[in-house]
Amino acid sequence: MSTIGVVEPQDMRLELPPGGLKLEKGGFLPEVVVRYEMIGTPEPEGRNVVFICHALTGDAHVAGWRPGERPGQDRPSGWWEGMIGPLSGIDTDHFCVMCANILGGCSGTTGPASRNPETGKPYGSAFPEITMGDIVAVHRALLRQLGFTRIAAVVGGSFGGMQALEWAIRHPEDMDKCALVAAAASLNAQALAFDIVARHAIIQDPNWRQGDYYGGAHPIAGLANARRLAHITYLSQRSMEDRFGREKREAWLHGGKEFHRQVRRDFKTYFEIESYLEYQGQKFVQRFDANSYLHITRALDAYDPEEAFGSLEAAVRQIQCKVLMVSLSGDWLFTRAQATRFVQACLSEGKSISYCHLHAPAGHDAFLTHFEELKPVMRAFLTATDAQDPATLNTAEAEGLEAFARTIPEGARVLDIGCGDGTLLKQVALSQRAWCIGMEKELPKVVEALHAGINVLMADIDTDLAYVPSHVFDVAIISHTIQVLNHPDRMMQQLLRVADWALVAFPNFGYLGMRLSLLFSGRMPRTKKFPYDWYDTPNIHNCTLKDFYDFCKRFGMKAKLLRRRSASLFGRLLCLLGFANLGADGVILRLERDSARPTAEPHDDGR
Amino acid sequence: MSTIGVVEPQDMRLELPPGGLKLEKGGFLPEVVVRYEMIGTPEPEGRNVVFICHALTGDAHVAGWRPGERPGQDRPSGWWEGMIGPLSGIDTDHFCVMCANILGGCSGTTGPASRNPETGKPYGSAFPEITMGDIVAVHRALLRQLGFTRIAAVVGGSFGGMQALEWAIRHPEDMDKCALVAAAASLNAQALAFDIVARHAIIQDPNWRQGDYYGGAHPIAGLANARRLAHITYLSQRSMEDRFGREKREAWLHGGKEFHRQVRRDFKTYFEIESYLEYQGQKFVQRFDANSYLHITRALDAYDPEEAFGSLEAAVRQIQCKVLMVSLSGDWLFTRAQATRFVQACLSEGKSISYCHLHAPAGHDAFLTHFEELKPVMRAFLTATDAQDPATLNTAEAEGLEAFARTIPEGARVLDIGCGDGTLLKQVALSQRAWCIGMEKELPKVVEALHAGINVLMADIDTDLAYVPSHVFDVAIISHTIQVLNHPDRMMQQLLRVADWALVAFPNFGYLGMRLSLLFSGRMPRTKKFPYDWYDTPNIHNCTLKDFYDFCKRFGMKAKLLRRRSASLFGRLLCLLGFANLGADGVILRLERDSARPTAEPHDDGR
Repeated sequence: MSTIGVVEPQDMRLELPPGGLKLEKGGFLPEVVVRYEMIGTPEPEGRNVVFICHALTGDAHVAGWRPGERPGQDRPSGWWEGMIGPLSGIDTDHFCVMCANILGGCSGTTGPASRNPETGKPYGSAFPEITMGDIVAVHRALLRQLGFTRIAAVVGGSFGGMQALEWAIRHPEDMDKCALVAAAASLNAQALAFDIVARHAIIQDPNWRQGDYYGGAHPIAGLANARRLAHITYLSQRSMEDRFGREKREAWLHGGKEFHRQVRRDFKTYFEIESYLEYQGQKFVQRFDANSYLHITRALDAYDPEEAFGSLEAAVRQIQCKVLMVSLSGDWLFTRAQATRFVQACLSEGKSISYCHLHAPAGHDAFLTHFEELKPVMRAFLTATDAQDPATLNTAEAEGLEAFARTIPEGARVLDIGCGDGTLLKQVALSQRAWCIGMEKELPKVVEALHAGINVLMADIDTDLAYVPSHVFDVAIISHTIQVLNHPDRMMQQLLRVADWALVAFPNFGYLGMRLSLLFSGRMPRTKKFPYDWYDTPNIHNCTLKDFYDFCKRFGMKAKLLRRRSASLFGRLLCLLGFANLGADGVILRLERDSARPTAEPHDDGR
Repeated sequence: MSTIGVVEPQDMRLELPPGGLKLEKGGFLPEVVVRYEMIGTPEPEGRNVVFICHALTGDAHVAGWRPGERPGQDRPSGWWEGMIGPLSGIDTDHFCVMCANILGGCSGTTGPASRNPETGKPYGSAFPEITMGDIVAVHRALLRQLGFTRIAAVVGGSFGGMQALEWAIRHPEDMDKCALVAAAASLNAQALAFDIVARHAIIQDPNWRQGDYYGGAHPIAGLANARRLAHITYLSQRSMEDRFGREKREAWLHGGKEFHRQVRRDFKTYFEIESYLEYQGQKFVQRFDANSYLHITRALDAYDPEEAFGSLEAAVRQIQCKVLMVSLSGDWLFTRAQATRFVQACLSEGKSISYCHLHAPAGHDAFLTHFEELKPVMRAFLTATDAQDPATLNTAEAEGLEAFARTIPEGARVLDIGCGDGTLLKQVALSQRAWCIGMEKELPKVVEALHAGINVLMADIDTDLAYVPSHVFDVAIISHTIQVLNHPDRMMQQLLRVADWALVAFPNFGYLGMRLSLLFSGRMPRTKKFPYDWYDTPNIHNCTLKDFYDFCKRFGMKAKLLRRRSASLFGRLLCLLGFANLGADGVILRLERDSARPTAEPHDDGR
């Protein structure tokens, strides 16, 4: 239950230059009022402020109760209630949380239904075309008027994430951090297509009258149908199937003959999903204005920093703050491919980028409803310590790692594949002042790494190196990971594509203990380094040190043995005598391209 | 280029009982005319006839030229041109191909725009509610009137596939084979939702007038928007992105200021995807009737044999013919999950079911445009020989297999996992009169098996056993497959879930040659049975015979060694002396549940 209490909305009239606010597309607004809400007390310059950008049809009421609602009796009515509060994703003990209704909206900030001071009537068709940049400019002007010049973070989901991105690109000095959830740099063609059909539904409504319907009937039939369509895109196919399937609506099951006849005459169906969509449509037209919907979705569709800067790389080059991108597994409106494309551009430009792909089968809307994974991720990102702050280093572990870290040149660009909680990278960042990116599969470790201030990409190592741009790293570290890969050959090629050289560690299947174990037991060997049952082992592509050397030769790489380890005294003796493949149970090598050798192509037959 | 020539459409007035055609929902049609086309010459009783059921907005013109078109100059105008012809998917050298426009449509067969003999005017709102069953009944009446009582096959894609299914369920004696492409037993919730929004778009158009618009303006704005929406669902997200992305439309790039102003005023965008959707909408309203769209989509939405029979199993229980289900990889309107659910029901009922999941990134519409994989699959299915016809058996191979086949009881229900081209199953079907189903991953082999008359499921062995119902087989055969699985433990449990016992063959890693190879070479062993490089081997979970026995004990199974093989004389000697784990390089075992032992749960930690 929220401890935030009642949050009073506040209206701020922007101080505008003579002539009013000039918009990006050339229009003017003589006056702009912004409605916003604030939870907590801002510090000077707004350094503890987290500004939340709301999604398409949201408003400023992000958490707590509205005036008139009864705390403790009514449920709190904020749209991101589950993410905001003490110790929550956005921790109100740490931060002052702000949200404001967007320009062009219909929840308090100036929009098409607002009174046009030049005519004294609602703008209607006279409301000028707005852009993502205009929406951000208005929020920024609000912050400036409040005296906030450098805030802690800008956070947004969906359309809000795109506002946050535009902000970080256009005004990079405004914030320390920026988090984008279920968002992308621009809409894909399918998402555009849905918006196009939705706008057609509105403008085909005879009540729309080119936007000048205020005072008469509103185009609610068209707006409701637009909303129904949008709602389909907010849920995953799976969650719609689970929630509704082909269930029949109550009213049909218990309705009389006349009701049945009416449903048939109007070509409606007896399905619960139709009842749900109609409810969503009806609820929506009571709170939203059709012209706002047209204006905002157009600004959303047109937003394209790639077009504005010539490339996505050039756009994200502007960013100075730390960035977190979050995509959701069930989201088909803003896809993982779009998120990783953004991450790719950030890596190209050497930015502080972190990325998580969260389990959210419900679909796009899960960013408003499912916080189990989003909350710890957001919390870790926003409250993270500085990666180069020695106070946060685990000193006991650090000692062992320091020697290892020193093998990496100062100021290097380092990728740690399978970075775990980021302990090694933290050491590297600290002692070598390196630009470090970790890749890690398991979310709890990703969260720990985020919290330690490490830039971390939640990634499936087998497939996700593919989106990392070429030559953006000096060194790639890959420890005890080769043998669990589906395609070690492709991976090694990828490694030396993204980095100049690699540090590779793996367990040696050629170790004498392994050989003797198979010979005498007649079973697949099980040792300290290979502790798994044959049917359940992640180690699916084992190799010996000798195999690895052959492999390097074949694929035009050279490997230099840096370290041999052995659990047994006899093994260490064999190593000393030069029989590393017999004596070592684990090895570390430095791997690089062998320019003297031609490169064989790795197999790619889909196995 | 089509060799079919001009195909004349023909109209048949159905001979109806007094009072007319009684419809499933209670309505009557006093007269019904069906427009159909026929390619080739039907044999008596129609035994060479393949009847094609067209999709939602298709018509009877399935291939060749329409009267008035110029063969050789115009492109042939049939909607399934690429699937029909000599040696094509539906081979006109073998079959007489028929297609008829559906009841409720607007391309020649009686529909809402047809003249109502009772009033002399178009039906409009007086057209009665129709169902999938009515549509099939009309086509069936057409065939009966032509003297066709048992045809070769009914084939359909999308909505046409659902007609074919309804036909096979309701009139199982009418056909030898039935092929469903990009179809399902019923629409899922998301597909229903899209249809609901589309129908809203039509009935909200003020020109619709409850359906009585003939003679006045038609509701083309609503119909066009419905079509735009449907078109989004026909393409995959990926193909829409590849084809359109965020490309700008030509007209915008070269249009003048007034055009730009107009686009902005109407809240249109400058994207090519909008231009494409508008074109699709405009083209559609010229050829299609809004009332037909309402009636047909409602029949589509309501179709649900699961509801009609109490369960999908009870519905498919009616089917007597051989069935082929084809799903498409990029199809999100009719999904793979829906297709496999149907296959599951057919397996439960012991039907002759085959299933292919084809690579078709374009999306649902690929069944109309991409024939590379669909054509050989359809051809193999339709022209297949009888599995129990000995004339088609490869006798050279058969001799070796016959002994093996005899280990399987007569009349057994047999699943062959990794069945290849079906040679073994063909032998089993022939000599043991068994009900045989093969599973195979590679399409060319699937096609060969289909052509040999084998029921085959194209499947990824690692995951797809999951949809096979429990206890539907007596015997499961799995040969040289365990070690390539990601989860051999789960797979063995699945095997003994779907079958009473299993025949298991695998290469033995404990073979002396393997042991000595690792010991002395210091490399991962490479032998005749293990010919791959360590980094590129499909054999990722190797085991020894001893390991396998331990494994069986642990998971409550018992294994009986049926055969040991060895490449070497010494190995065969060791086998004779009882040292199978040392001497055999390959083994065959009979595996079954050990009722005396408790079953350990296989690991399921996502590795």
